[in-house]
Amino acid sequence: MAVYTEVADEDLARFVARYDIGRVLSCKGIAEGVENTNFLLQTTAGHFILTLYEKRVDPGDLPFFLGLMQHLARRGVICPQPVAARDGATLGELAGRPAALVTFLEGMWPRRPVVEHCAGVGRALAGLHLAGEGFGLVRPNALGQAAWAPLFAQSADRADSVAPGLTAEIGGELAALAAGWPQGLPAGVIHADLFPDNVFFLGNRLSGLIDFYFACDDFLAYDLAICLNAWCFEPDGAFNFTKGQALLTAYCRERPLGPAEVAALPVLARGAAVRFLLTRLHDWLRVPPGALVVPKDPLEYLGKLRFHRAVASARDYGLL
Amino acid sequence: MAVYTEVADEDLARFVARYDIGRVLSCKGIAEGVENTNFLLQTTAGHFILTLYEKRVDPGDLPFFLGLMQHLARRGVICPQPVAARDGATLGELAGRPAALVTFLEGMWPRRPVVEHCAGVGRALAGLHLAGEGFGLVRPNALGQAAWAPLFAQSADRADSVAPGLTAEIGGELAALAAGWPQGLPAGVIHADLFPDNVFFLGNRLSGLIDFYFACDDFLAYDLAICLNAWCFEPDGAFNFTKGQALLTAYCRERPLGPAEVAALPVLARGAAVRFLLTRLHDWLRVPPGALVVPKDPLEYLGKLRFHRAVASARDYGLL
Repeated sequence: MAVYTEVADEDLARFVARYDIGRVLSCKGIAEGVENTNFLLQTTAGHFILTLYEKRVDPGDLPFFLGLMQHLARRGVICPQPVAARDGATLGELAGRPAALVTFLEGMWPRRPVVEHCAGVGRALAGLHLAGEGFGLVRPNALGQAAWAPLFAQSADRADSVAPGLTAEIGGELAALAAGWPQGLPAGVIHADLFPDNVFFLGNRLSGLIDFYFACDDFLAYDLAICLNAWCFEPDGAFNFTKGQALLTAYCRERPLGPAEVAALPVLARGAAVRFLLTRLHDWLRVPPGALVVPKDPLEYLGKLRFHRAVASARDYGLL
Repeated sequence: MAVYTEVADEDLARFVARYDIGRVLSCKGIAEGVENTNFLLQTTAGHFILTLYEKRVDPGDLPFFLGLMQHLARRGVICPQPVAARDGATLGELAGRPAALVTFLEGMWPRRPVVEHCAGVGRALAGLHLAGEGFGLVRPNALGQAAWAPLFAQSADRADSVAPGLTAEIGGELAALAAGWPQGLPAGVIHADLFPDNVFFLGNRLSGLIDFYFACDDFLAYDLAICLNAWCFEPDGAFNFTKGQALLTAYCRERPLGPAEVAALPVLARGAAVRFLLTRLHDWLRVPPGALVVPKDPLEYLGKLRFHRAVASARDYGLL
């Protein structure tokens, strides 16, 4: 939850006047999203999300993110659509920050995902991967496998303060992943952060995907591995085989995995666990005093990583 | 900004099913209100604010607050109206907390109040005081003059750490207020917290009053004194006479002040400054580590208090 930037009403009115969306009726900061400031904006023309991009987002990446949402929406993915101002621009400036308006999506993210949600997200992820084909822009994964060792180097000296032996365990894992990371798997645009809070449902029916601000190019099956980590573990740390099966089966129905992807799934899942372990560790060690955001526990992902190391094949995740 | 409590989607669905408001389409935690958790709830029937009352609100006071909003709305004050469940109850329970649904009000609170806003709030405050007549429930002001000395006693030993000499200055002020506090002024239901973030406007037209969770019985002119403090000072600490004049003139057009109220206005304004100085000081000295809320600066109200001490009569505030 985070609202980093206040917007004066007259500045907002000036911003909105650039669009064909009528008059502002209400604008409330919403407690969703950690990287940016989001407002739920109501105008005489409808509902929108107004996002101010804070300093963790590189402004140079915004054309990729906004362009991707347009591309996906045109190809049938239910996701926020950037609203163009009268001059055609989807990116503006408000309160000294890059800012964009996107359409409002109905639905709620599931606080306690059930099997049906996992099936829904598997199907939607495959749909996203297929719809991403032909998108003209490219964004390398800044948090991909090559980035993990330099990222860990910033925290290695203090990792043992979070859990004894953590420095050595991650060091060993990074070496194993560097040696065993797959090559040449089918690649394309991935969401890279499709956690439950980025997937909306109405009841058990998926109603939209949001937050494309980590989207990039990488192996498609790596995105699936991220979802296995994000959706198929229980609060007590146990892997839920039924959820894994639902997610993988629904994905494969839309986009069947090739043999190399199936073989790589355990190592991709280890990599995905390491990626979130490392960013959480980084943030955990750098909580500013009086922070507005409570950091997420890195050790949740250490438990997941250990599970994946013990996995023999993709069948252990529920792949039929 | 504060969202203290997460609500699971299935718990929300169960809660909403008690009302005739259709199906939930969206529910977003909003970054407004410090005491409670607020969600902007969209259903097939419209928009609502869902409030979970957190521990700073006494559940025994909720019938007063909800009843007052109903009473005021029936008498033409634009404020949130509690929505009754099918069984007639306006108070329910959600996520282990007392919870209520109220109607959604359009408008935005003014981040930089101008003279027209001050006139609007003066008129609306008088309207609220008149509409409050005949409300059947009573709630003594828990933060009224009698409460200030005991409240200060909890912070007196550490007040000098906030500003040198603060303990002595507040002590002297409390003695002066206890000796000079007016008696027998017209009393009734007051809002007691009508700051800019509790008053909505569409452009310069006032569109509603919110947050009645400090409302209580006290001198009506004390409520006006709170507004003088909250609306008529500039960010640099200077009193804005034009704003004071606009606020007072608009108030008196709806509800003329009696001579005793006029005479008491400076001491009421001092008291109002002390009340916010003391609660801010209390919170400032008790910020929990990792707090989600940045406390407000108590010294802003020390400056206002000193201004009021130098005031000769209500004419100095702009009363004609």
